[in-house]
Amino acid sequence: MTFHSMWAELLPIGRSSASGGYRRYAWTAADADCRAWFTQQAEDRGLVYEVDRNGNQWAWLGDPAAGDAVVTGSHLDSVPDGGAFDGPLGVVSSFAALDELRGRNVQFTKPLAIVNFGDEEGARFGLACVGSRLTAGQLTVEQAHRLTDGDGVSLPRAMEAAGYDPDAIGPDPERLDRIGAFVELHVEQGRALDLSGDPVGIASAIWPHGRWRYDFRGEANHAGTTRLVDRRDPMLCYAETVLAARREAQFAGAVATFGKISVEPNGVNAIPSLVRGWLDSRAADQETLDTVVAGIEKAAREYADAHGIDLDVVRESFTPVVEFDHALRDELGDILGGAGGDTALKVPVLGTGAGHDAGILSGRIPTAMLFVRNPTGVSHSPAESAAEDDCLAGVRALADVLEGLACR
Amino acid sequence: MTFHSMWAELLPIGRSSASGGYRRYAWTAADADCRAWFTQQAEDRGLVYEVDRNGNQWAWLGDPAAGDAVVTGSHLDSVPDGGAFDGPLGVVSSFAALDELRGRNVQFTKPLAIVNFGDEEGARFGLACVGSRLTAGQLTVEQAHRLTDGDGVSLPRAMEAAGYDPDAIGPDPERLDRIGAFVELHVEQGRALDLSGDPVGIASAIWPHGRWRYDFRGEANHAGTTRLVDRRDPMLCYAETVLAARREAQFAGAVATFGKISVEPNGVNAIPSLVRGWLDSRAADQETLDTVVAGIEKAAREYADAHGIDLDVVRESFTPVVEFDHALRDELGDILGGAGGDTALKVPVLGTGAGHDAGILSGRIPTAMLFVRNPTGVSHSPAESAAEDDCLAGVRALADVLEGLACR
Repeated sequence: MTFHSMWAELLPIGRSSASGGYRRYAWTAADADCRAWFTQQAEDRGLVYEVDRNGNQWAWLGDPAAGDAVVTGSHLDSVPDGGAFDGPLGVVSSFAALDELRGRNVQFTKPLAIVNFGDEEGARFGLACVGSRLTAGQLTVEQAHRLTDGDGVSLPRAMEAAGYDPDAIGPDPERLDRIGAFVELHVEQGRALDLSGDPVGIASAIWPHGRWRYDFRGEANHAGTTRLVDRRDPMLCYAETVLAARREAQFAGAVATFGKISVEPNGVNAIPSLVRGWLDSRAADQETLDTVVAGIEKAAREYADAHGIDLDVVRESFTPVVEFDHALRDELGDILGGAGGDTALKVPVLGTGAGHDAGILSGRIPTAMLFVRNPTGVSHSPAESAAEDDCLAGVRALADVLEGLACR
Repeated sequence: MTFHSMWAELLPIGRSSASGGYRRYAWTAADADCRAWFTQQAEDRGLVYEVDRNGNQWAWLGDPAAGDAVVTGSHLDSVPDGGAFDGPLGVVSSFAALDELRGRNVQFTKPLAIVNFGDEEGARFGLACVGSRLTAGQLTVEQAHRLTDGDGVSLPRAMEAAGYDPDAIGPDPERLDRIGAFVELHVEQGRALDLSGDPVGIASAIWPHGRWRYDFRGEANHAGTTRLVDRRDPMLCYAETVLAARREAQFAGAVATFGKISVEPNGVNAIPSLVRGWLDSRAADQETLDTVVAGIEKAAREYADAHGIDLDVVRESFTPVVEFDHALRDELGDILGGAGGDTALKVPVLGTGAGHDAGILSGRIPTAMLFVRNPTGVSHSPAESAAEDDCLAGVRALADVLEGLACR
């Protein structure tokens, strides 16, 4: 089955006809359809299929127990109204790269596996990379049990409803010990490759990033009858903070975003009692990120203190900078940039602000990432795209890398 | 049954133990409990109970068909997490005032009715005063049929599920023609009486007010990987507009509030594609309101145009200034301020920014309003309050007014 056919099979799954975006949330029907597609691809290629204790899917060529395995893959779930490429491009390219290598009649000297990590986007339970975090021991079983979706369904109940055993979840060090290298191919989520004119790049590092919840509490009151001087309106403080976040990020060359909000009582004629906003901020290094985040909180507190607003700021998640394994990165550069590879690409090395399963696993095993050019840089949106020629260049580059790692 | 006992019976209905606020939305179980309470009060007093074609409840003393009836009452529904007084104080005071008049052994020369208007707050279907608007012909049947709640349930289906006949709704001119005066008692929703030191006041006018929906459309994108210069983030434009609204209102001595927001996709790591905010604005006169609303839209458009944001502004509702009937207002002043009344109150006359059923009906019949002091001015919130002594002063004032209007 060609790249094009695999892509066409996945396209309709979980796509909203209203928005044109994807709603493939963990342990839902759309997720199950994606998983069934993965299983079928493994079967079609005579690969050994297995699901690990955390619900991640694996398709093995060679003996998983032999050790020093080369693993590639990504995820199939999506953000709310996400694009078609974020995740699926890596999984489809993995199967296509294996097909390419079989066409080249290479001899595998190491086991090879293709993986689909569960719940990478965290769209349903609010925490990203749950499948890889659990496997790497970065998320405890107790923490996972406390995750609930917007309807109050817990992660264990959602897994159970999808036919998986939630009592099995937990760290999986034996599995990780058998992996020599993990390479994740992903659509680029910025415009670096578009600006440099290259179809494929190699990741250097993932920026440190975090999420902070800002709870602005004021006093609910009637929007028509309460004098401005008598108000404690938390929406004003939220608005000041949104603008402060942009200023601080711009000044520091970082990014900061308020993209999610929850308001109580959220009535047209009611001054809110509570405005809850979530800040996402990232920067190239820890010190810059600290400066930006502190500057935003300072601005928020100054306004809050002056206007009778109670402010709580809670750091909900944080991921330090991830430097991908330098030796593996250099090896990929040699394979793709040197005379040995079929692609003979000049491959730029670039950082990224996005988190990935590869970032989670990098603390335990050597990991690397390949990026495929995204002409608009748009991501997490139905407008996310990559040209088919670039996708096929990505498949060839991934095949070269896998050949270099698993066949020598 | 005393004022206190009636009040105590209503207090638990539809109260959220989480927020302490009321969630008595039209045609819900809590609303049905309030309605059952009203029916019981009518029965206990030997009044003739009826429901009109729009679901408003009436309790009659005397012959409804005789004409020139004096009507008092208010509503029993609430905003989300509203207070106990907004609405119920007027209904409970109406029954208590009737009891007071019976204690005085007065002779009624005109029919008297107590009314509970349905869906005054508009919390469920987004439009306030649905019961009185339908009756007064200010809302067409077609418009009413298009109203839906947040779950997609239409107003007719909601009425039907509550046991009412949605096919009957429509204007009710015969009913209005039989009414000589409508007086609504209401807790004050500002601090004018607190500042003047009076327990009861008379309404002069309702400020003109309206609701405008601001749709800010940008481009959904990844919050971690999209450079600030590549963003079209509608949240920034929303924040600028929220602050502009406060500035414009403050400058003009009006009020303007963004209390309701809806964001798509509303993900922590997603730049929004759409931020929809609702503006509520009111002023003492039309010209001031026009100036404020135009100033806010101008500020929003300037920012939107400069930052690639598409902005649509839709006026969702508008109510011109309501001047209550001057003759009736003067009559109330004479009754309450003169030697004839039992209360001998000095009664201030004050404007209000809040809409009421009395405002809707004022276009068809002479209407007036009494306000009861609210020590904090807080309204549409669990903190809304009035001292029991002030409530009882309100009951006596209403009894005086009804005696003056219906017994002479």
